[in-house]
Amino acid sequence: MSDADGDRATMAEIAHAAGVSLATVSKVWNGRSDVSDRTRERVEEVLRVHGYRGRRAWAAEPAGTIDVIFSEIDCAWEGEHLRGIEAAGHEAGVRIVVSSLDRGETARRQLLQRLRAGRTDGAILATLTAAGPLVTALGRLNVPVVALDPACRTAGDLLSVDAANFAGARAATAHLLGLGHRRIGLIAGLAELMCSRARLDGFLAAHDDAGLSPDPELIVRGEFDFPSGMAVGGRLLDRDAPPTAIFAMSDFMAIGVYEAARIRGVSVPDQLSVVGFDDLPGARWAAPPLTTVRQPLREMGALAVRSALGLAEGGVLATELVVRESTAPV
Amino acid sequence: MSDADGDRATMAEIAHAAGVSLATVSKVWNGRSDVSDRTRERVEEVLRVHGYRGRRAWAAEPAGTIDVIFSEIDCAWEGEHLRGIEAAGHEAGVRIVVSSLDRGETARRQLLQRLRAGRTDGAILATLTAAGPLVTALGRLNVPVVALDPACRTAGDLLSVDAANFAGARAATAHLLGLGHRRIGLIAGLAELMCSRARLDGFLAAHDDAGLSPDPELIVRGEFDFPSGMAVGGRLLDRDAPPTAIFAMSDFMAIGVYEAARIRGVSVPDQLSVVGFDDLPGARWAAPPLTTVRQPLREMGALAVRSALGLAEGGVLATELVVRESTAPV
Repeated sequence: MSDADGDRATMAEIAHAAGVSLATVSKVWNGRSDVSDRTRERVEEVLRVHGYRGRRAWAAEPAGTIDVIFSEIDCAWEGEHLRGIEAAGHEAGVRIVVSSLDRGETARRQLLQRLRAGRTDGAILATLTAAGPLVTALGRLNVPVVALDPACRTAGDLLSVDAANFAGARAATAHLLGLGHRRIGLIAGLAELMCSRARLDGFLAAHDDAGLSPDPELIVRGEFDFPSGMAVGGRLLDRDAPPTAIFAMSDFMAIGVYEAARIRGVSVPDQLSVVGFDDLPGARWAAPPLTTVRQPLREMGALAVRSALGLAEGGVLATELVVRESTAPV
Repeated sequence: MSDADGDRATMAEIAHAAGVSLATVSKVWNGRSDVSDRTRERVEEVLRVHGYRGRRAWAAEPAGTIDVIFSEIDCAWEGEHLRGIEAAGHEAGVRIVVSSLDRGETARRQLLQRLRAGRTDGAILATLTAAGPLVTALGRLNVPVVALDPACRTAGDLLSVDAANFAGARAATAHLLGLGHRRIGLIAGLAELMCSRARLDGFLAAHDDAGLSPDPELIVRGEFDFPSGMAVGGRLLDRDAPPTAIFAMSDFMAIGVYEAARIRGVSVPDQLSVVGFDDLPGARWAAPPLTTVRQPLREMGALAVRSALGLAEGGVLATELVVRESTAPV
């Protein structure tokens, strides 16, 4: 465990407090798998209560590794985040290890086992949902955890890196109102995600600023992806009184709206203005190039690395409306 | 260095053969930076000649790490490759460390220093160009190296994972010829890349199969990205006798052709058929959905991991023509 006698004595106390043998404490500390989950959790809790800051504190030097945990690795904002993460890791001289949780519970357990056994200096959680149990488990390991774009409710007590979702949505909506649109469809994201709520609030605030009220029937929900944007966008366009503009809470959903419009012969932006959110590389290559709210995804990734290493305290980075060719006056 | 006397004797021989002290051999072996590049290279060469298979062979257990080296981390095929790499790494129980070389020579040097110091079980080179010096340096470290989609000429003597570029381009071209197109524009990639050459050969072979000859004036070059596809695609469309179909060697260039057509009022597929190559997620979301050649990018990433771990020998994976809505009869 350690060469210092002082530490060894403390470990005996840990064993006593947890009601297990010193060997069991050692197994837990060294990330061995031949300990029951229940015993491991008890020992980890006692270690934590006694101020042990994870295995890393015992090591002669930092692990030189930051773990990045994605819900799934996708060609969406994950790629842009990773670009910033890798660059900041390079600058700080740490390795970036990537993991994905899209293989379910087994993946989560294996990841935790690996983090217990192999040392890490910190973890960046870039997951939209279901991070709760993982956050709890990471907390027991005393690994510094930073939530990147923390959409999940459980992220409340973590260091976090976020984009200015409210301000971005307000700017996008104000842009459409300024072009004279009064029937603006909103394709929100999943209701339980904080970023969805903040963007919905921004949409409502922009109407409020202009002394207007949105039609609640034009507020619908998608799942941030192309198919859902195409499906609910199509339903908006099929209404008796369709909207003249649609603000989608992701670029993918906005491009789905493009496709729903195309197959109905509705021209963007002549007959329908569309605004997205993210400014992924594909937004400027869409036909027509998409007006969207830029999230500084790379900068967010870099700030997450610096925060995990204790060089920053997280933060909220500004968004920016990028006006291209998908929006026009009514 | 090792507890075994036999090994120690051999290290003395290494020191003698390299004309340096045992301490210097030890420094090189342990990845210390206080050795000149010249000395390190000499010692590494002697180690290699004497059959040392890298530091890993001395370790009690494998490093449990595979390094993936990208030219740059992008939301293009890199993301899809990484998805397969991460999944296969999970299956094999190894960590996936990502690096990017887009910060130039410094990044390359730091990467090599890190690979020398921290142990790795293997490296996957997912870089289009300029990998030559890196390959040489990795070879001296005796790290197993697998070239993923080896476009660079220097990859000739490495284990490699590749897609069936020739067959894919031949199928795409035959599809267009079968629709009656006789003036097919080809937007090739950079001439020095093996994948460009193989796809050009496939394009020519399909014409040959049909007893036809392509117009050499319709064969142009882009740089695999959207802007170059838009630029050279536009030049093809501006000719006195424009092509009725364009085959672009990447989806990004094909989407660039879409934009060139859109701003000229040319309708896809009614007035121009377009075929891409890759089948990135965005291909099916393009307007109209893009006919393209599917590269099995995830499967390629997974095979690269297995090959780096000595569980497979690389290979060429099949491509598949995916017919969507961007192609139509003349």
